[in-house]
Amino acid sequence: MYIHNCWYVICWARDVAEAPVSREILEQQVVVFRTESGLLAAVEDRCPHRHLKLSMGQVVGETIQCGYHGMQINAQGRCVHVPSQKAIPPRARIRSYPVAERYGWVWIWTGDVELADPAQIPDFHQLTDPSLAAVGSTNFVKAGFRLLNDNLLDLSHVGFVHTSTIGNREFGANAKIFAEKIDGGVRVSRWVIDCPPPPTYEKTGHLPAGRNIDRWSVIRYTAPSFVVIHTGGAETGTGAPEGRLDHGINLWVMNAMTPANEKTTHYFWATARNFRIDDAEIDALIFNQVSEAFEEDKRVLEAQQIAIDRHGDDWSNALQADVGSVEGRRCLERMMDSEMNGETGQATIRKSAHN
Amino acid sequence: MYIHNCWYVICWARDVAEAPVSREILEQQVVVFRTESGLLAAVEDRCPHRHLKLSMGQVVGETIQCGYHGMQINAQGRCVHVPSQKAIPPRARIRSYPVAERYGWVWIWTGDVELADPAQIPDFHQLTDPSLAAVGSTNFVKAGFRLLNDNLLDLSHVGFVHTSTIGNREFGANAKIFAEKIDGGVRVSRWVIDCPPPPTYEKTGHLPAGRNIDRWSVIRYTAPSFVVIHTGGAETGTGAPEGRLDHGINLWVMNAMTPANEKTTHYFWATARNFRIDDAEIDALIFNQVSEAFEEDKRVLEAQQIAIDRHGDDWSNALQADVGSVEGRRCLERMMDSEMNGETGQATIRKSAHN
Amino acid sequence: MYIHNCWYVICWARDVAEAPVSREILEQQVVVFRTESGLLAAVEDRCPHRHLKLSMGQVVGETIQCGYHGMQINAQGRCVHVPSQKAIPPRARIRSYPVAERYGWVWIWTGDVELADPAQIPDFHQLTDPSLAAVGSTNFVKAGFRLLNDNLLDLSHVGFVHTSTIGNREFGANAKIFAEKIDGGVRVSRWVIDCPPPPTYEKTGHLPAGRNIDRWSVIRYTAPSFVVIHTGGAETGTGAPEGRLDHGINLWVMNAMTPANEKTTHYFWATARNFRIDDAEIDALIFNQVSEAFEEDKRVLEAQQIAIDRHGDDWSNALQADVGSVEGRRCLERMMDSEMNGETGQATIRKSAHN
Repeated sequence: MYIHNCWYVICWARDVAEAPVSREILEQQVVVFRTESGLLAAVEDRCPHRHLKLSMGQVVGETIQCGYHGMQINAQGRCVHVPSQKAIPPRARIRSYPVAERYGWVWIWTGDVELADPAQIPDFHQLTDPSLAAVGSTNFVKAGFRLLNDNLLDLSHVGFVHTSTIGNREFGANAKIFAEKIDGGVRVSRWVIDCPPPPTYEKTGHLPAGRNIDRWSVIRYTAPSFVVIHTGGAETGTGAPEGRLDHGINLWVMNAMTPANEKTTHYFWATARNFRIDDAEIDALIFNQVSEAFEEDKRVLEAQQIAIDRHGDDWSNALQADVGSVEGRRCLERMMDSEMNGETGQATIRKSAHN
Repeated sequence: MYIHNCWYVICWARDVAEAPVSREILEQQVVVFRTESGLLAAVEDRCPHRHLKLSMGQVVGETIQCGYHGMQINAQGRCVHVPSQKAIPPRARIRSYPVAERYGWVWIWTGDVELADPAQIPDFHQLTDPSLAAVGSTNFVKAGFRLLNDNLLDLSHVGFVHTSTIGNREFGANAKIFAEKIDGGVRVSRWVIDCPPPPTYEKTGHLPAGRNIDRWSVIRYTAPSFVVIHTGGAETGTGAPEGRLDHGINLWVMNAMTPANEKTTHYFWATARNFRIDDAEIDALIFNQVSEAFEEDKRVLEAQQIAIDRHGDDWSNALQADVGSVEGRRCLERMMDSEMNGETGQATIRKSAHN
Repeated sequence: MYIHNCWYVICWARDVAEAPVSREILEQQVVVFRTESGLLAAVEDRCPHRHLKLSMGQVVGETIQCGYHGMQINAQGRCVHVPSQKAIPPRARIRSYPVAERYGWVWIWTGDVELADPAQIPDFHQLTDPSLAAVGSTNFVKAGFRLLNDNLLDLSHVGFVHTSTIGNREFGANAKIFAEKIDGGVRVSRWVIDCPPPPTYEKTGHLPAGRNIDRWSVIRYTAPSFVVIHTGGAETGTGAPEGRLDHGINLWVMNAMTPANEKTTHYFWATARNFRIDDAEIDALIFNQVSEAFEEDKRVLEAQQIAIDRHGDDWSNALQADVGSVEGRRCLERMMDSEMNGETGQATIRKSAHN
């Protein structure tokens, strides 16, 4: 069960610079390529002749050429050239998908083509905001996208899973949590007051040494699977809880989870910061720390998927800290119901409000 | 189909010294841990909150703490602490198992808790007898426990599978075999008179060089899957067949096979000897030779399991040497029938008689 | 669905020189061995006692001895010796198969034994013709044999898959193709006139440098899965299209595809040449180039099998260049119908005509 009338990230724009990219999304095999004139295209990753993955071929002009017998398919999924004959088989056609490039990501639409409006791409402007510096990558996680949503909506795990990087024990135990509904999603605010900074924050050298901080995470989830977390910390007593967030560490963690299928997910992530934005060392530090943290998550999520395959996705012991995850699941279910009932374009498609 | 009202070995006591141990037994996922006060505990390896394996967490006080959101579970399988809230979810409970430590092994009971009497743990006293020296380990074998039973009950294979270690061709061909029923099992005595010693025996330097030996193996099997083999050899003509076993080589090979599931088995083994018991070189020699022999068995057993998956476990060409294996299978079937008929505590549970 | 009344290659004669060979063919597990007196034998790869693969044992005299308990099975599949007892279990018998050695290959017959006439082994005389030099090997390909047939019958792929070895772009695009039915198969003639030689041809040094060639491939397919390709090239204008093939490069590519099962194939191949036949450097060059080309095919074929598992083996966009593949499939279907209707020995079994 997936939401189809929705833009999903399929790859980074940089991924498709040199060669076609093959991805399973929503159980469909898709190849993304950039034609010689620079247009992006996404079509079924299967030659209509003898079914080889087109991604094993190469871009030729405005087409992708099959690597087996050379049939050429254009961005609309139509065969336009056969090397060994002049006639084009009239049924040699495969599915093509609307695509758009925004925020450095390539977005794809798997639903009703009539509804594919790029204005509805969720807001991830921090990825390319010139006043910020963003680093990020892609993880392939053998766990369903719902489990990734849950993970990001209950950050109490940071105090257990990520104690070597972005978390510590105080973070998991002493939080104040507020959840509020937003259009098509939920916003969870999480504050930990007067706690030690986590290892990653200390390594930036951007906080006064040896002092406690007030730490916040404002998690904005929109269904089906987009999460922007504005997180950071500032020295305790300097006004962060009262709204003074213009000092200390400010990070925006950008997360777009695209289902490959029910049990595996392409996880696109980036972290943007507003300090020392031209500093390559800080780029590397943040990239490495967050990569490591997400490897920690991956280990947990994949084990959780195996457990859930065996036991079922049972929520009978939900905790107060699950408030965001539970509301997120509700939003997703409503969106699915809405799409199944044909109410697309209203309830299911929206531009996310700015955080 | 498994016997449940029975103690099984789940791990060596030494395995659980540093960290929790995760094991599948009888198709159940179990974590064994030792609390800070030194108590052994075994519970379902699944957090009641979001189902992560508890073995991915750590021991905290008298509990095991989940590595995802920090829920703490005690030895009875009850949640006793949630880091992010004060209230304990009333249904946050998982199964716990009776455990006991004996002979250096941790034993677990998967059946009716009322019947779990540690006095019924089978006798493997040679593992910790101070007059003997025992070395051993655990193999994970991708074959059902019945095939491991068969292997140990028909030692004619030693003359074909183990010619580089504990066997030679004479051992497979010229044996005299006697089988007799014992309480809940079978005892098979196997003698080879006036044969060359196998490579392992020669390497001990504990036999007169260049002389033939009389070699014995007394295999005591009790259902479902315990085997103690008293084996050895003494110079031909020095009275071994008449009962003088106080010289030459005396070994006790201890075997406890715990089903992970129908097709995989945790195989706990050790070899005890009564000579040069403080000699670390002989420890290493025996350990390495028997390890190598059991790797040879593993290769055969896993191939046999694959063949049986395809062909069925057909006994239509049973040989005279299979007498022990066939009687062992009968004991197991009787024990299963008895347990299914609710006659537990009588036929199915017993303390093994000393060999 | 397989043709059974047919000789298949099971291994090279050289493969069975030192030890038994285990192969799955037509979903049957078979062991091939050569007895001490030099006879070839093929029997079910399973001991009738406890079902271990006999190929894990060894040849003893005129038998293969099981590596578990030593039962010995002769070339007729009968147990003839049990080490641990005198009596032979009367039902200890497994299937044996007719075998024959020809052209350096071991052939096996899986069908009706009465019909197994070695005179019907297909003609691959080029493998052992003293006027030619042949090099070859075996690939295990995770794709069904039909896809391998298709691959060899539509060489337009050579211009896309093999541009680093035996193909170039001109080869895929400018061919003239003629297909004609032959007894039990199809012959496809493929000519490319006045084109550059491919990399492999240039590396032989056997063509005038910098000159275009006329290139031919005469593909002779006989069902179920035998292909001999006479291919080569000679300087343009020197009469090749008119029949003068006695100069330039002449190669015979020999292909025998034996189904392991519906989705995997043992692919036996060799390339024979009529020039510099005693030159070990040319042996190595041809072997390495063709090996590399067949690795390129393997990559494509295995991806195609995965695609077809998902999509079905749909031919709705067949091209003119598929004429040979399509006719080959028809021959195979006719042969299957014929065998299913009991018309074996007539339609389904024949000696291939010489090319």
